Amino acid sequence: MTVELRVPDATCGHCKSTIESAIIEVDDVDKVELDLETKRLTVEGSSALDIQRITGAIEGAGYTAEQLP
Amino acid sequence: MTVELRVPDATCGHCKSTIESAIIEVDDVDKVELDLETKRLTVEGSSALDIQRITGAIEGAGYTAEQLP
Repeated sequence: MTVELRVPDATCGHCKSTIESAIIEVDDVDKVELDLETKRLTVEGSSALDIQRITGAIEGAGYTAEQLP
Repeated sequence: MTVELRVPDATCGHCKSTIESAIIEVDDVDKVELDLETKRLTVEGSSALDIQRITGAIEGAGYTAEQLP
């Protein structure tokens, strides 16, 4: 399954690297991509993928996670 | 409310610092304490505190979170 979130305070390549590195460590995650222009984070993984766990990893890395409109 | 988890691979002061720093960034968290002897993590926060979000922050920091027996 795929989870999409917005990370509005991701501004540069360092942010992207920090966030992607944290997300890929989360259980059930296979692939992660953060688009710095749109601030959209796309996470692919198994059916057990949990949006709250992804949110926790983003917050734990010091960023904000927003639901997409 | 209080959430308790076990972080079996937390071994030293650096682990403790890394994990506690990640958890305190999670929304709705007020206080966090990791006991390296018992590997028990205790998180206090508001009623919105979410165990999956705490788990995600632990995993994002590179550690494993286990439910307490």
